[in-house]
Amino acid sequence: MRYILREDDDVPTPTIFTEMDTLQREGDELEWKESARWVKFEEKVEEGGERWSKPHVSTLSLHSLFELRTCIQTGTVLLDLEGYSLPQIVEIVIKQIEEGMISPDLRDKINFVLLRKHRHQTKKPIHRSLADMGKSGSSCSEYSFTFYQGSSCSSLSLQLRNKFMKKIPRDAEASNVLVGEVDFLNKPFVAFVRLAQATTLGGLTEVPVPTRFLFILLGPQGKAKSYNEIGRAIATLMVDDLFSDVAYKARDREDLIAGIDEFLDEVIVLPPGEWDPKIRIEPPKKVPSAEKRKSVFSLNEVGLMNGTAGGGGGLSEDEEIFCGGLYLDIKRKLPWLLSDFYEGFHIQSISAVLFIYLGCITNAITFGGLLGDATDNYQGVMESFLGTALAGTVFCLFGGQPLIILSSTGPILIFEKLLFEFSKNNGIDYMELRLWIGIHSCLQCFILVASDASYIIKYMTRFTEEGFSSLISFIFISDAIKKMVGSFKYYPINTDFKPDYVTTFKCECLAPDPSDSFRNMFLNVTALDWSQLSKKECLKYGGSLVGNSCKYVPDLALVSFILFFGTYSMTVSLKKFKFSRYFPTKLRKLISDFSIFMSIMTFVGLDMLLGLKTPKLIVPTEFKPTRPGRGWLVMPFGKNPWWVYVASFVPALLVTILIFMDQQISAVIVNRKENKLKKGCGYHLDLFWVGVLMAACSFLGLPWYVAATVISIAHIDSLKMESESSAPGEQPQFLGVREQRVTGILVFVLTGVSIFLAPVLKFIPMPVLYGVFLYMGVASLSGIQFWDRIKLFMMPSKHQPDFSFLRHVPLRRVHLFTLIQIMCLAVLWVLKSTFLAIIFPVMILGLMVIRKMMDWVFSQHDLAWLDDLLPEKEKKKKDEDKKKGKEKDKDKDKEKKKSKAEYMESQWGAYCQHAAARSVF
Amino acid sequence: MRYILREDDDVPTPTIFTEMDTLQREGDELEWKESARWVKFEEKVEEGGERWSKPHVSTLSLHSLFELRTCIQTGTVLLDLEGYSLPQIVEIVIKQIEEGMISPDLRDKINFVLLRKHRHQTKKPIHRSLADMGKSGSSCSEYSFTFYQGSSCSSLSLQLRNKFMKKIPRDAEASNVLVGEVDFLNKPFVAFVRLAQATTLGGLTEVPVPTRFLFILLGPQGKAKSYNEIGRAIATLMVDDLFSDVAYKARDREDLIAGIDEFLDEVIVLPPGEWDPKIRIEPPKKVPSAEKRKSVFSLNEVGLMNGTAGGGGGLSEDEEIFCGGLYLDIKRKLPWLLSDFYEGFHIQSISAVLFIYLGCITNAITFGGLLGDATDNYQGVMESFLGTALAGTVFCLFGGQPLIILSSTGPILIFEKLLFEFSKNNGIDYMELRLWIGIHSCLQCFILVASDASYIIKYMTRFTEEGFSSLISFIFISDAIKKMVGSFKYYPINTDFKPDYVTTFKCECLAPDPSDSFRNMFLNVTALDWSQLSKKECLKYGGSLVGNSCKYVPDLALVSFILFFGTYSMTVSLKKFKFSRYFPTKLRKLISDFSIFMSIMTFVGLDMLLGLKTPKLIVPTEFKPTRPGRGWLVMPFGKNPWWVYVASFVPALLVTILIFMDQQISAVIVNRKENKLKKGCGYHLDLFWVGVLMAACSFLGLPWYVAATVISIAHIDSLKMESESSAPGEQPQFLGVREQRVTGILVFVLTGVSIFLAPVLKFIPMPVLYGVFLYMGVASLSGIQFWDRIKLFMMPSKHQPDFSFLRHVPLRRVHLFTLIQIMCLAVLWVLKSTFLAIIFPVMILGLMVIRKMMDWVFSQHDLAWLDDLLPEKEKKKKDEDKKKGKEKDKDKDKEKKKSKAEYMESQWGAYCQHAAARSVF
Repeated sequence: MRYILREDDDVPTPTIFTEMDTLQREGDELEWKESARWVKFEEKVEEGGERWSKPHVSTLSLHSLFELRTCIQTGTVLLDLEGYSLPQIVEIVIKQIEEGMISPDLRDKINFVLLRKHRHQTKKPIHRSLADMGKSGSSCSEYSFTFYQGSSCSSLSLQLRNKFMKKIPRDAEASNVLVGEVDFLNKPFVAFVRLAQATTLGGLTEVPVPTRFLFILLGPQGKAKSYNEIGRAIATLMVDDLFSDVAYKARDREDLIAGIDEFLDEVIVLPPGEWDPKIRIEPPKKVPSAEKRKSVFSLNEVGLMNGTAGGGGGLSEDEEIFCGGLYLDIKRKLPWLLSDFYEGFHIQSISAVLFIYLGCITNAITFGGLLGDATDNYQGVMESFLGTALAGTVFCLFGGQPLIILSSTGPILIFEKLLFEFSKNNGIDYMELRLWIGIHSCLQCFILVASDASYIIKYMTRFTEEGFSSLISFIFISDAIKKMVGSFKYYPINTDFKPDYVTTFKCECLAPDPSDSFRNMFLNVTALDWSQLSKKECLKYGGSLVGNSCKYVPDLALVSFILFFGTYSMTVSLKKFKFSRYFPTKLRKLISDFSIFMSIMTFVGLDMLLGLKTPKLIVPTEFKPTRPGRGWLVMPFGKNPWWVYVASFVPALLVTILIFMDQQISAVIVNRKENKLKKGCGYHLDLFWVGVLMAACSFLGLPWYVAATVISIAHIDSLKMESESSAPGEQPQFLGVREQRVTGILVFVLTGVSIFLAPVLKFIPMPVLYGVFLYMGVASLSGIQFWDRIKLFMMPSKHQPDFSFLRHVPLRRVHLFTLIQIMCLAVLWVLKSTFLAIIFPVMILGLMVIRKMMDWVFSQHDLAWLDDLLPEKEKKKKDEDKKKGKEKDKDKDKEKKKSKAEYMESQWGAYCQHAAARSVF
Repeated sequence: MRYILREDDDVPTPTIFTEMDTLQREGDELEWKESARWVKFEEKVEEGGERWSKPHVSTLSLHSLFELRTCIQTGTVLLDLEGYSLPQIVEIVIKQIEEGMISPDLRDKINFVLLRKHRHQTKKPIHRSLADMGKSGSSCSEYSFTFYQGSSCSSLSLQLRNKFMKKIPRDAEASNVLVGEVDFLNKPFVAFVRLAQATTLGGLTEVPVPTRFLFILLGPQGKAKSYNEIGRAIATLMVDDLFSDVAYKARDREDLIAGIDEFLDEVIVLPPGEWDPKIRIEPPKKVPSAEKRKSVFSLNEVGLMNGTAGGGGGLSEDEEIFCGGLYLDIKRKLPWLLSDFYEGFHIQSISAVLFIYLGCITNAITFGGLLGDATDNYQGVMESFLGTALAGTVFCLFGGQPLIILSSTGPILIFEKLLFEFSKNNGIDYMELRLWIGIHSCLQCFILVASDASYIIKYMTRFTEEGFSSLISFIFISDAIKKMVGSFKYYPINTDFKPDYVTTFKCECLAPDPSDSFRNMFLNVTALDWSQLSKKECLKYGGSLVGNSCKYVPDLALVSFILFFGTYSMTVSLKKFKFSRYFPTKLRKLISDFSIFMSIMTFVGLDMLLGLKTPKLIVPTEFKPTRPGRGWLVMPFGKNPWWVYVASFVPALLVTILIFMDQQISAVIVNRKENKLKKGCGYHLDLFWVGVLMAACSFLGLPWYVAATVISIAHIDSLKMESESSAPGEQPQFLGVREQRVTGILVFVLTGVSIFLAPVLKFIPMPVLYGVFLYMGVASLSGIQFWDRIKLFMMPSKHQPDFSFLRHVPLRRVHLFTLIQIMCLAVLWVLKSTFLAIIFPVMILGLMVIRKMMDWVFSQHDLAWLDDLLPEKEKKKKDEDKKKGKEKDKDKDKEKKKSKAEYMESQWGAYCQHAAARSVF
C-alpha cells in the first residue's frame, strides 16, 4: 500500500493539529465543547478540572480502531471538497448521504446541530465566559467560543494571542473531529471530509489554523463513550506522521482504509492484565521518526551503528599534502567565522563567562603562587594572570576549537621547577634558557602540524579519553578537598577549649631573654611594647609566644568548611532544580544555568554577614613583574654560552611531547561525539596556536599554556543547548553546544582586567572557590560511560539501568573492561604522585598501548559497544557490515514479495465477527 | 462468552508461570534455549548479555496476536491430555496431526526436534556451562539444562535451590512455549496441549513447577522472528488472569478463541508514532485486578468511592448503650491481644524503638527543664522521665491505639505555669491543688467515655486533621531551628578575631576594687589567685572579666550547626536511599529503616572525634525528686481549705477539654485511612486510660500526658510495611503498619531506665537531637495532601502531578480550599504565640466550625475529593449514589442485551484480509 505515499514522496505534507469537540447540552442549548486536542500527543480537558491534562500518549482500545474503520467504510467520504465556509460544507456533506440513507426531515436537524457554536477550553475560568455569553447573546465574548452563524468579529485576533499557538508549527493545518449523540438519529451518521484548500472556518478551531480535515460522527443516544473513543481514534490517526500523509494523498476511501490497516499493523499492544488503561503514559524521550518507520531497521543494526560511529571527531585522511591538516582545519573553520561571534550573544553566555572566569582566576592564582615559589618569583601571580589572559584570548580568537580553555597544568609546573633548579645549580640564566626552549618547542610544534601528526588522535578511543579525563577530574576533586583539609591545619581548632575557663586561655608575646646580647645589639628591645605586637611581629623581633591559645585559630576552619560544602551542595541542588516541577520551564532553566553564580553570591553574602577573616581571593593590583629585577621582555642572547641555544633542543622535545599529548587529549574530550559539535574540530590549528603562544610567552617571560581538561568540560557544560519542546509533551532534546568564540574571549579579557577588579574580588572567600572546583571535578565525571560502569558494580543486575551496551555485552565482560580501566587509573594515580608526574601526559600513550592489547582480550563486537574500534579494525568491520547489509536487503525484498503474494489469504473473519458484536453500528 | 468462566467461577485456578524456549543450533546440535519467562511480567534473555532483562510489560504487535489466533484455529488443540512424560505427550500430539496434513516421514523429525535438550538461562556464565557440557556429554551438568531422554538425575534438587523459585507462588503450574524454525517443514506445525494433570516433565522448565500447558510452534525457516512474536503472544496470554482461567476451563477450540477475542477487546493500543516499541515499559504501580476487569467500574464511581470512604476510622453508632463505645473498643481490641506482642518481633522494631526513644528522651528533657522552671522544680527533669515512662508504658500496654506515643505538650505546660503562679500568689498548696484537678479531670474523662463523646471525631475531617498536624509539625520545625539559632547566641562568635593578633585577645579576671570594703568583709580576696578562676567563679567572687574575648565562645556554634544540619540531611538522604539502584533491595530497606540511627551514630562519632565541648544530653542519674522538699506521693488532704477540693472542678474542666481535643485529634491522625490500620481504633479506650493516668500522675506528682502528634506520626512511619514484590517487576505495595504494643512499651521502659544509661547518653550532643527533631517535623509534613496542594501554587499547571482531585476539581477551587487552610493555620499560629496558647487544642473546634461553613462555599462533589464529607451529608450522598447506581445498572443490562443481538453483524473482513497478507501461514 505504500504506493499511495510513494507517488510524490518528495512533497512534505503539513503538520496536523487536531481538535476534538463533543456535542453537549448547556442549559437549553446544544453546543460543541472542546474535549481534547493533539499536536503530537493527546491533551484532554479534565472532567471537572476545567483544565488541560498533561500531554500524554493516546491509549486507544482496539475496538474503537475497528469501529473507526467501519465508519470510514460505511460513512460519507469527501476528498478535495471545495469549501469556503462551514454551512456550505455541511450542506454538501448532508447532500451526499441523502440518497435514501436518512429521511429528508433529518437533514435540517443534522444541519442545525452541526452549526451549533463551538466553545473552546481556555485558561480563563469557565463561569466567566458563561456570564459573558449570557450578556452578549450570540455575539463574540472575550473568550474563545464562537457561534458559527454570527460574525467572526475580533475572535481571530484573540486567537492569535493564544500562547498555545507557539507550540504549533507555522505550516500546520487543522483537522476537526466532531462527535456527539443526538436524539433524532437511530443510525450513526459519519462523514470524513478533506478540503481542497485549507480554510479558516470561523471559530471552529481554538487556534487560527486553517482546517483541512473534518470528521463528523453523530449517532443515537446512549453510546457517547463509544463515539468519544472513535473520535479519539481518528484524532490520533490524523496526527500520526504516516497516516496524515495517507490522508493528504488518498484518492479514495480504500486508500484511507489501507492507511488505517497499516497503522493497525504497527500498533503496539499492551496486555490488559499488565497495564492499567487509566494510567496516562508520559511521552517518551524519543519516538521513532516517520522515516525510520517507513524503512526497516532492526534494533541491532541501529545500535551497532551508534556504537561504531564517531571517535575521530570527523578527521579525514584523504588529502595528504604538506600542512594538509592545517589547511583543512582553516577551510573548515572559516565559514563559521561570523557565526562564531553572533552566536555568542545569549543569556546563557553570561553565566558561562562568570563560571569559567572564576575557575580561571582561581587557577591563575593557585598556579601563579606555586610557580612563584618554584622559580623564585621569576614567574609569579602577576605573570600568571597576564599569561592566562594573553594565551587564552589569542587561542579563543584564532584556535581551531575555541571552546577549549587554556591554563597552566601540573606537568609544566614541575618542568619549570626542575629547569629553574638546574639553571641555578649550573649558573645558567633561567629566563634565557627558557626562552630558547620555548622557541625550539614552538618550531617542533610547527613540524608536528606540518606533518599532520595530530592524526594520532584517531587512536585515542573512549577508553583512553575517559581514563584521562577521569584522572584529571579526580585530581581536581582531591585538590579541592586537600585545600579544604589544609584549612583545618592552617586554622587549628582548640579542642580543649572550655567556655567557662576562657580566662585561662591567652597568648602572650614575651620579650626575648635580655641576656641574648647578640640580638640586643641590633634591636632596641626595651623600646618595644611587647604586649602590643602581633604574632608575626613578635616572632620577627625574636619574642616568644607563650600561652595555650597561640597555636589555635577559632571558627575560621569551620566557617571555611561551611562555605566550601555549602557552595558545592547548593550548586548541585540548583543544577538539579531544572528537573523539578516548580516554576515555569524557562525560569528553571535560568536558575540552573546560573546555579554556580547564585551559590557563589549566596556564600559570599553569608561570609560578609559573618564578617570573619576567612582567606579571601587576592589578585595583584599593580602592573609590574613579580620579581623586581626582571623586565617584561626576555632577550634571546647574551647571558648564556652559545651551545645552550642548541642544547635546549633536548628539553624542548620533552616539553613538546607534553604539550602535544595534553593539548590533543583535551581536544579529543571536548570534541567528543556526545557533545554534538557542529562546527567540527581543528586539531592542527589548535596545535599551531599553542606553538605560537609558547614562543610568545617565552619572550615575555610568562608561563606556558595548554588545554585544561576539566575547565574546558565545564565550559562546554555551561553552554549546552536544549530544544524548546515543540509539541506539548515532547521531551526537549540535547541539540549541541553554543559553539562560539565570545565566551572564551570574554573570560580571558576579564582575567586580564582582574587587576582592576581587585576591590570586588577581595570579597570572595577562597573556600567558596574550592567548592566551585569540587563541583567542576564532580560534574566533569558525570555523564562518562566509565563512571556509569563503575556504578554497575554496586547494583544488583536487576536494578541496573537499561544501558544499550548491557543488552549486548555480557555483564562480566563489562565488569572486566571497567576493572582494567580502574587499574590503569590507579597506576596513573600512583605515577603522578612520583617524580614521573612530569611525563604524565605521555602516559596517554601507555593507555593507548593497553587499549591496543585489549583487542586480544575482547571481541570486536564487545569493544564496539564499550569503546570505539581502532581505525584499521573499524575499516574491516565496516566492510563486513556493508556486505551483510546487502545480503539482508536481498532477504527483505524476497519477504516483501512473498507477503504480497499471500495477500488474498484470509483467515481472520471470526475475531472480526466477535468484535462486531460489541459495535455501535 | 463469560459463560466459560461463570460455570464454576468459585474454583480459583492456579497461577501460571510461562517459559518460552526457542530452538537453536549450538555447534552441530539442536537445543531448546530459554529465551523469556513470565511470572506476571516478561523477562527476556538479553541477546548478547547472557542476562535477564528487567521485568517489563510485554509489548506485543497486533499482528502476532492475530497470527496466534490463526494458530489456535488451525493447529492441533488437545485439552485434558493424559500425559506423564514428554515423549509420550509428543507422540500423541504428532499422532493427532498425521491425518494427511503432513507426510509420515516428517513425524520422526518433529519428534526428534521436540525432544532435544533444554538449556535454561542461569546466573552462571554460559561459557562454564558449555565447558561442562563438553565434559559430561548428555549427563547432568551443574547448570540447569537437561537432556530430556537422559536421566533427570539431581537436577530437581538443583532447581529447588533456584532463588527465582521464591518469586513463583506455591500453587503455580507451568506453561511451556516452544517455538522454532526447522528446515524440513514447509508449513507451520502448531499444537496447544492442556494436560489433565499438571506433571513435572523432567527439565522442561527452569524451576520445579509442574507443567500444565504446552504450546508448540514449528515452522519453515526464515520466519524466526514472527514465530518468536507468536510465542510471546501466547505466553503473555497464558499469564493473563482472565485468559488463564479460560485456558483451564475451555472445553474446546472455540472457547480458547473466544478467550483470545475477549483479550483483544481489552487490549490497550499505543499509536506507533507516539511510542517507541523498543522502550521497555516498567511495570505499573498497580494493575487492574481480574475481578475489576470482570465487572465494570467507571473511573468516576471508583474515584468517588475512595473520596468518600474513611475519615471516621471505622466507628459505628449502631449500639447506643451506656459505655457502649468503650465496650466495643475492648471487644475490637481483645482478639488482637496476642498478635499485639508477637508481631512486634521484627528487625524494623529495633530501629523504630531507637528512633522514638531518642525523640522521647529529648522531649522529656526539654519539657522537664521547662516544667522545672515553671514550677520551681516541683516537677523537673526527673519527674518528666518517670512520668513519661509510666504513662507511656501503661498506655501502650492497655490503650486502644498502642501506636500513639504519649508526651508532655505545650498547652499543659502553660497550664501548669499559670496554676503554679496562681497557687503561689494565693497561698494555696500547688501539689495538692494539682492532685484535685487531676482527680476531677479523670472523672470528667470517664463521663466523656461513658457518654461516647468520642463520636465527635467523626466531624474531624481531613481539613481539621491536616490543619492541626501541619501546625504541630511547623511548631516542631520552628522549635528545632530556634534551638539551633539559640546556640549562636549562647556561643557567640568573635567576628573581629584576627588570627595574627591572637596576642591581643584575652579575658582576664580582675580582683574587685579593694576599696569595696563591704565585700572584703566576707571574703578574703587576697587569698584567691584571681587569674586561675573560671568565668563563673570570677563573677561569683565579685571579680570582673576584662578583655576582648570574654563574651565569645569559639567553634561551638559552628560545630553545633554542622552537627544539626548534618544529622538532618544525612537522615533525609539515607531515607531516600531506598529508591536508589544500589545494593539489593533488602539492604537498602535496612539502611533506610536505620537511617536516623546511622546519622546519629555518625555525628556523635564526628563530635567525639573533634572533641569539642558541645552541649550534651544530660539525663538525671539519681533517683530522687528534683525538688528536695517533696516526696514521691502527694497527699490529697490537709494543706488546702475544703472548698479548694470542690472548686478545682472548674480548672479541671479546662484541662479535660484540652486533653480530650489533643488526644482525639492525634488519634484521628494516627488512625488516618492512609495508614491502612487493620486492628481498628479505640478512641474511648484511649480516653479512658488517659483519664486513669491523669489521676495516677497527679498522685505521684508527675506531669500529665497526652498523645503527641508528631512523635506518633514518626512512630507509624518507622513501622510501615511494604509487600515483598511477588512477581518480578511488581511494585511493592504499602501494606499497612506493624500494629503492636512491643515498640511502644520498649521505648518507655528504655526511657525509665535512661537514668542508668547516662554514661552512654552523655556522648550525644544536643544539636544532633535537634536535627532529629527537624527531621521528624519535616517528615510528618510529607504525604499530607494539604502540603501537596500548597506546592501546587508554585507549579505551572502543566507540570502539576496527576493527583486524582485535580482531574475532578477545578484548580482555582483547589487553590481556594488551600488558601482557606493556610489562613486558618496562620490565625492559629498567631494565637498560639499569645496567652491563648492554653486553649490551643480547643481551637480544633474552631477548625471544625470553619469546615462546616465551607459546605456553603464548596459543592459536595468538590469536598468529597478535597476533604471528607461531614456525616449527615455523607449519608445523603450515599443514598443518592445508590439510586443512580441502580439506574446505571439497568442501562448496562440493556446495552449488553443489545450487543448480543448484534452479535452476528460482521463488517470487519477487510482489515483482516490485509492482516492476513503479512501472515506467516
